[in-house]
Amino acid sequence: MTAPSIVIDPAVSERLHQRIDTLAAYSEEDDCLTRTVFSEAMQSARQSLHQWMESAGMQVTVDPLGNIAGRTPGTTSTRRLLIGSHLDTVRNAGKYDGALGVLLGLACVEQLSACGIAVPFPIEVVGFADEEGWKYQTPYLGSSTVMGDFQPEWLARKDETGTTLQDALEASGVSADHLGRNRDPVSAYWAYLEAHIEQGPVLETADCAVGVVRFIAGQTRASVTFTGRAGHAGTTPMALRHDALPAAASWIGAVEEHGRSIQNLVATVGRLHVEPNVSNVIPAKVELTLDLRHPDNEVRLTAVQHLHDIAINIANGRSISAEWILTQDQPAMACDEKLCAALQTAASTQNPRAPMLISGAGHDAVAVSQHLPVGMLFLRCRDGLSHHPDEYAHPSDIDSCLAVMVDFLRRSAESRLYDEF
Amino acid sequence: MTAPSIVIDPAVSERLHQRIDTLAAYSEEDDCLTRTVFSEAMQSARQSLHQWMESAGMQVTVDPLGNIAGRTPGTTSTRRLLIGSHLDTVRNAGKYDGALGVLLGLACVEQLSACGIAVPFPIEVVGFADEEGWKYQTPYLGSSTVMGDFQPEWLARKDETGTTLQDALEASGVSADHLGRNRDPVSAYWAYLEAHIEQGPVLETADCAVGVVRFIAGQTRASVTFTGRAGHAGTTPMALRHDALPAAASWIGAVEEHGRSIQNLVATVGRLHVEPNVSNVIPAKVELTLDLRHPDNEVRLTAVQHLHDIAINIANGRSISAEWILTQDQPAMACDEKLCAALQTAASTQNPRAPMLISGAGHDAVAVSQHLPVGMLFLRCRDGLSHHPDEYAHPSDIDSCLAVMVDFLRRSAESRLYDEF
Repeated sequence: MTAPSIVIDPAVSERLHQRIDTLAAYSEEDDCLTRTVFSEAMQSARQSLHQWMESAGMQVTVDPLGNIAGRTPGTTSTRRLLIGSHLDTVRNAGKYDGALGVLLGLACVEQLSACGIAVPFPIEVVGFADEEGWKYQTPYLGSSTVMGDFQPEWLARKDETGTTLQDALEASGVSADHLGRNRDPVSAYWAYLEAHIEQGPVLETADCAVGVVRFIAGQTRASVTFTGRAGHAGTTPMALRHDALPAAASWIGAVEEHGRSIQNLVATVGRLHVEPNVSNVIPAKVELTLDLRHPDNEVRLTAVQHLHDIAINIANGRSISAEWILTQDQPAMACDEKLCAALQTAASTQNPRAPMLISGAGHDAVAVSQHLPVGMLFLRCRDGLSHHPDEYAHPSDIDSCLAVMVDFLRRSAESRLYDEF
Repeated sequence: MTAPSIVIDPAVSERLHQRIDTLAAYSEEDDCLTRTVFSEAMQSARQSLHQWMESAGMQVTVDPLGNIAGRTPGTTSTRRLLIGSHLDTVRNAGKYDGALGVLLGLACVEQLSACGIAVPFPIEVVGFADEEGWKYQTPYLGSSTVMGDFQPEWLARKDETGTTLQDALEASGVSADHLGRNRDPVSAYWAYLEAHIEQGPVLETADCAVGVVRFIAGQTRASVTFTGRAGHAGTTPMALRHDALPAAASWIGAVEEHGRSIQNLVATVGRLHVEPNVSNVIPAKVELTLDLRHPDNEVRLTAVQHLHDIAINIANGRSISAEWILTQDQPAMACDEKLCAALQTAASTQNPRAPMLISGAGHDAVAVSQHLPVGMLFLRCRDGLSHHPDEYAHPSDIDSCLAVMVDFLRRSAESRLYDEF
């Protein structure tokens, strides 16, 4: 059977592109896009989405955290396909990361309707309320909560002003006890599909609009603190110093060198804090973060151990101390093989060279994969740039991705793929 | 002529040691000593000093910036000897740096009186209001102003909150135009004498309480900014990065290595600022400070040029940019040879092994030396530590320094040293 390729309805495409801009205008900052859980901007984004979902004939629910879901009609006994991504953003963000995946889910529903294609399972489009997790250091907060995995210890985590997640929940009228309430069991779904901008340069380099994600890299985050001794920059001879900054600098060099030496490894020192951070005082203390990712867990853990040992050796060689704190240890995640194969078939009809990808970034798919088979598509984005106002995905690439998703839905219906889970 | 050595009056010594603690209690922070120009703590310190000076029979004046001076009686036509140091501190400071030099000046006046020694010139003891200059990036602000060298461009310099020096002056009721008013001409003085803790380990290593300063090292301060490109820490392959932090780290290593390779050179990166400083974002920009000092101007300037070139080379090699801004270029300063010789004679009566020293730190003596012959004494401090709450000078070392200063005054009177300037 060779199915005809999907032709996107111009009205569906037009609405989708307009909605990207509509959501991008909901920001808690005047001069850039920043939208976090509990903000008024998030509430406005949710209200718009609510209207659009209802216009598409979907039944809408919002949970206490602010996760919003719209469901196409169907018997409650039939397992649903969950499609979505997140509505929150980093600070000073682009407008595609997250929101686009939610809007593509909604556009799938509209396009199926426009094409007159009926699928024998309800589709539930979800907009998660917090994936970036930068505000309370809680990545995948929204999707974890929907999956029933909210962790009570997250309640004590604080934003920059010292407000805990618990305080923020209460301020928005939510009792933490209610977070798991009225939630559908995960058995209500047969799979999860997420589309997201790639946030990297591989699709652009391959000249391809859409690719199928095979793995999401495992990720280790750690903080390293070198503690030496302050001293007067003018009067302490070089030989008598216990300067924490050259120790940190030496380690930063080692992180970069090791990252470059192993294929598919990325290792980053992104944040650094010096004490006392005064130009004429020898630094007493330097705190740094390590972010290290690789699709193979063993390679990742070996690299982490290596960089840990280097930090200790650097400190010992300089008679200062090094403290290592592991803050995140997220194993690599494999997307479901059958879903990958079906998505690859759909993607190949658009572009026979559609590559299989490794995601270096985490996504809601990671949290959902604990419970459901997960399939994921990446869209090409300009210069691989994300988390930045210049983030950009071309409208025709967005339409290509929508076509792949709708084609996947049609084929899944025809092949009864849902029965295989 | 062999003069009997000076025996410090116990009451003078006792008062001096108590006053050190009294001033140390005037802080703008509860849990540590921090005292800056215009603060209430500075005002309180000045009030105490005002009382002590008046009790010693001195006539006290305070200038618009807050520099305080007390003068012993004498005809205004007789040139005075200026003795002093500064009353401000760094953040989280020790209690000896600066304040001790002011209090030693006052104790000289009291000791001369207690011994019944009359010197044929008035003594003016000065407490400068701002020497550290960390708040508005204006080192020697107090002494420069007393010497008539206030620079109008300093008015635009800002503290961490963005308040300019001009705003701060106006908030304390001072018009910048008044800074030079009512100032005595520098011709009113025949010399300047300053005592200060060494802030380094040389006297301790030599087992000596007091030493005479021969040179104050020249000092270059610069800021270096490496600008690369932000990117997602998980999705940007190592080979495609323009990470500003490893560039900065490489340069920090070069600064340390070069500092170690040249005798008497000290080179420090004390302050570092990363943008955006987020753990999962590749650093786009790193600003660093360089503080480099050497007693030989040519050696210093060559070292600065070398480190400048290395910064540019590092940036070029990584296809990022480096910006270099010279913020201070202070030549090395030689103390007056005749004053050095007279101070050395006085110091030798206390300890024949009293060494001649090079100061790695700047002092008010640097600003004053533009106009007056300058002599300077260093006192031993424990572990060479300064700019730190553990900063400590032993009471008996303080008394030794006072004895050297008073002996110098007596000999200067006897030998009519003041006539040689």
